[in-house]
Amino acid sequence: MRSLIDILDLTVEEIDELVNTACDMIENPSKYAECCKGKKLATLFFEPSTRTRLSFEAAMMELGGNVIGFSDAKNTSASKGETVADTSRVVSCYADIIAMRHYLEGAPMVASLNASVPVINAGDGGHAHPTQTLADLLTIHRKKGRFDNLTVGFCGDLKYGRPVHSLIHALSRYEGIKLVLISPKELALPDYIKREVIEKYNMPCIETDSLENALPELDILYMTRIQGERFDDVNEYERLKNSYVLNAEKMQCAKSDMAVLHPLPRVDEISVDVDSDPRACYFEQVFNGKNMRKALILKLLNEVQNCARGNEESFVESKPCNNPRCVSNVERGLVSKANKTDDGFRCAYCESSINI
Amino acid sequence: MRSLIDILDLTVEEIDELVNTACDMIENPSKYAECCKGKKLATLFFEPSTRTRLSFEAAMMELGGNVIGFSDAKNTSASKGETVADTSRVVSCYADIIAMRHYLEGAPMVASLNASVPVINAGDGGHAHPTQTLADLLTIHRKKGRFDNLTVGFCGDLKYGRPVHSLIHALSRYEGIKLVLISPKELALPDYIKREVIEKYNMPCIETDSLENALPELDILYMTRIQGERFDDVNEYERLKNSYVLNAEKMQCAKSDMAVLHPLPRVDEISVDVDSDPRACYFEQVFNGKNMRKALILKLLNEVQNCARGNEESFVESKPCNNPRCVSNVERGLVSKANKTDDGFRCAYCESSINI
Amino acid sequence: MRSLIDILDLTVEEIDELVNTACDMIENPSKYAECCKGKKLATLFFEPSTRTRLSFEAAMMELGGNVIGFSDAKNTSASKGETVADTSRVVSCYADIIAMRHYLEGAPMVASLNASVPVINAGDGGHAHPTQTLADLLTIHRKKGRFDNLTVGFCGDLKYGRPVHSLIHALSRYEGIKLVLISPKELALPDYIKREVIEKYNMPCIETDSLENALPELDILYMTRIQGERFDDVNEYERLKNSYVLNAEKMQCAKSDMAVLHPLPRVDEISVDVDSDPRACYFEQVFNGKNMRKALILKLLNEVQNCARGNEESFVESKPCNNPRCVSNVERGLVSKANKTDDGFRCAYCESSINI
Repeated sequence: MRSLIDILDLTVEEIDELVNTACDMIENPSKYAECCKGKKLATLFFEPSTRTRLSFEAAMMELGGNVIGFSDAKNTSASKGETVADTSRVVSCYADIIAMRHYLEGAPMVASLNASVPVINAGDGGHAHPTQTLADLLTIHRKKGRFDNLTVGFCGDLKYGRPVHSLIHALSRYEGIKLVLISPKELALPDYIKREVIEKYNMPCIETDSLENALPELDILYMTRIQGERFDDVNEYERLKNSYVLNAEKMQCAKSDMAVLHPLPRVDEISVDVDSDPRACYFEQVFNGKNMRKALILKLLNEVQNCARGNEESFVESKPCNNPRCVSNVERGLVSKANKTDDGFRCAYCESSINI
Repeated sequence: MRSLIDILDLTVEEIDELVNTACDMIENPSKYAECCKGKKLATLFFEPSTRTRLSFEAAMMELGGNVIGFSDAKNTSASKGETVADTSRVVSCYADIIAMRHYLEGAPMVASLNASVPVINAGDGGHAHPTQTLADLLTIHRKKGRFDNLTVGFCGDLKYGRPVHSLIHALSRYEGIKLVLISPKELALPDYIKREVIEKYNMPCIETDSLENALPELDILYMTRIQGERFDDVNEYERLKNSYVLNAEKMQCAKSDMAVLHPLPRVDEISVDVDSDPRACYFEQVFNGKNMRKALILKLLNEVQNCARGNEESFVESKPCNNPRCVSNVERGLVSKANKTDDGFRCAYCESSINI
Repeated sequence: MRSLIDILDLTVEEIDELVNTACDMIENPSKYAECCKGKKLATLFFEPSTRTRLSFEAAMMELGGNVIGFSDAKNTSASKGETVADTSRVVSCYADIIAMRHYLEGAPMVASLNASVPVINAGDGGHAHPTQTLADLLTIHRKKGRFDNLTVGFCGDLKYGRPVHSLIHALSRYEGIKLVLISPKELALPDYIKREVIEKYNMPCIETDSLENALPELDILYMTRIQGERFDDVNEYERLKNSYVLNAEKMQCAKSDMAVLHPLPRVDEISVDVDSDPRACYFEQVFNGKNMRKALILKLLNEVQNCARGNEESFVESKPCNNPRCVSNVERGLVSKANKTDDGFRCAYCESSINI
């Protein structure tokens, strides 16, 4: 059964196919209004994420399907000690496809190995959130008409920003991508991503702490929120935060066809005076996210083939994972496993570095 | 985009039209079973209200539409600091119409100014709850065949009772309405409603603290709950409460065709021995509420016109609103505005008195 | 209106009919895909039970119907003091059938006496959970082709295990059933069930504390969880618990066509190394549960007849029920009533022993 756990589970060709389908769905929604009739999506949200859940539910309904599920873990069998593996086997009796959000990293991977229906990762802790990346990609494509030869700025919290990491991974597969990383040094992109992605694929990359200096070069500006609690020094945070706020004044330095993206919710990092700027794409991004989820659900339900990922043959047994948020440290009966990468071994579930 | 924030957003003619549609829906439900096929209602309940939520959901499903949403604020992006404005823009990407319940007064108004789909106020704090009033109106019409020349008693907590205030507003537009206000003085109707509605429209009005004395004259009795915590003096509450309980014995003094309404849930203020009395209409009121919501959803989805209300031209900038529960004191980036009324200026969002 | 409150509300013939319908639904799901079109199920879950709720919702959707409801009591009118009776009258205005889960024993019974639509008990405290028993029965029938002449072992917590009690009741109506009760003495089957069911119907019955000794004789093994908190002596629990864990090694002593059932969720009492054994039926049981719920919903919606149960004529007024979890001790305005049985009087709502 084919699942989507990480954005790299999809080939470049498959992403093109999803983009094409989503664009056709936007143009001709009625063509798809019954194509999942009689099918059910289960939205298993072990932590709340209203926006993502409503996007999946709207997507399934626009395909003519139904939705069951829950929006918070405390009301579930998990609170009675049920494993992710058992929950996914049980829900396979009720639904044709599962979208799982979980606070444990790797939980959707465990689900995909046990469910008899496709599983979509709707966000697992700090690990991955591939359908957000699909929303980002469709927004870039609809604005720019291409994925290559773009200068893409990422601004704000690049250290913890899961959407940033995933989108850099996704863009590493295209030609001519230049990265501009805009953040205070406290929130710089982690070294392992620089090594494993940016250096490995020879992506030109500039680091700066000035949004204003970077702006004029950018084709895409991906904004994220800077949270005060990430800083050891509150004064440092207060001093810095305004320089990472995008407003109408700063937008004057940007290209006339730059696109501003944001994974939402935003708090203060994009001023409301930017909303009416035609370059502001963050609400279109929401609409695009729904349409990519429609395309993805349809694709996975149409495929009856083995999992291109979750190919357990390539895993080796390992010592326990050091990541306390990894599902392998919580789920009973789960064997620790690792995957060999260019950068050493990584946990098969949460992709943290691991010793074998 | 047309929205419904306050019962007075609807003209008398529109209320007649909704009543006629609802009556036809009750007679011929199958005629409407597919008329919202492919449409989605979002029920955004920032505070729980099961009865109202289920009524909207049942209404939309009986029109052939789908429902997405949430039933409590703690699981939403609002808890991550998202504004009502942003939430309503996002949900506009997922749904064709929104029903919003919010603990902040004026929040549905803010939503209607930002959403690209119609917004229905499903109750905003102590401010307004227009679909409850629609349920009340249909119940009166189905029992009495008219909205004019009726003696209408309101009993219980007239000070805080939002449904009471709204229904008095709605009835002020009809001829020959006599009001009988039955409450302890601690819970009397607020003076501003007397001034702005009852006196302004010259509605004959009697105030009394005796339900038994008032009963024989009434065509309609609108019961509400008296909550002990509203009283400074517990002994006073204990002394009074039984006199505001309706029971089978008291019903003997009432007209044979009086109609008893109650917005529910009831606790003790209507004895269960009244339930089997044919004059007890509070469960029919629930059924009627669902049908008025059906008629309203259909009307708003069918209209593609500008908002008759939310006409920002008529607003002036003002000092901050004094109501701590007003959305304008919480929502970031919202400018305080006021509306000129006969009684001075009122907040554009929550309708409290305001200085400009 | 016909409701299902207790498994014995269904005759043996009706259970056969439900089994036949469910089997046909499994073979020909598309035949039933529209048979509840335009109908609504309300899932009123006053305590969370995700598995049961999703099973009902999936069932209704596979019949072409819609679902409204709530998954937890804290968000409901009950928290504002509404009675079960009023809630069920209100929801009758919104839905065509109700599935109610409640922490109070007898609450679905109260609902069935007040609703104008059929009510299904989806579990009421420690009292009854008849649709779990329907799932168990279909699983036995699909594995064994019969309900008679079976040796059925129950293992684990037989004292508090509601599914165990209900299944013994259900099996008491068939010929040739032999029971094997496997538990520590602290968790033995209650005496009143032995008297009122096993002795009354002369069911051959063996009690043992050894799963291994019992295994070779069994056609069916019904596993349940032993909870440490049930024991006064923690050391005793630690000493015992492993002997009530089923694993692949113990399965070697069992018949080659034995069926292992479990109401789920399981924690440790069935080792994951049993999951791949073809005799492990607990996930099929989930699938079967959904199909029996489909058959039941269809049957109740098709029947327009009086309640075979809830026949209030046979009840007598009684002293208050001694069970603190009985709905009659919480619900306002509910008269205590009792039912005469072979074993004295029992509460009409929760079936505890009662004095009249």
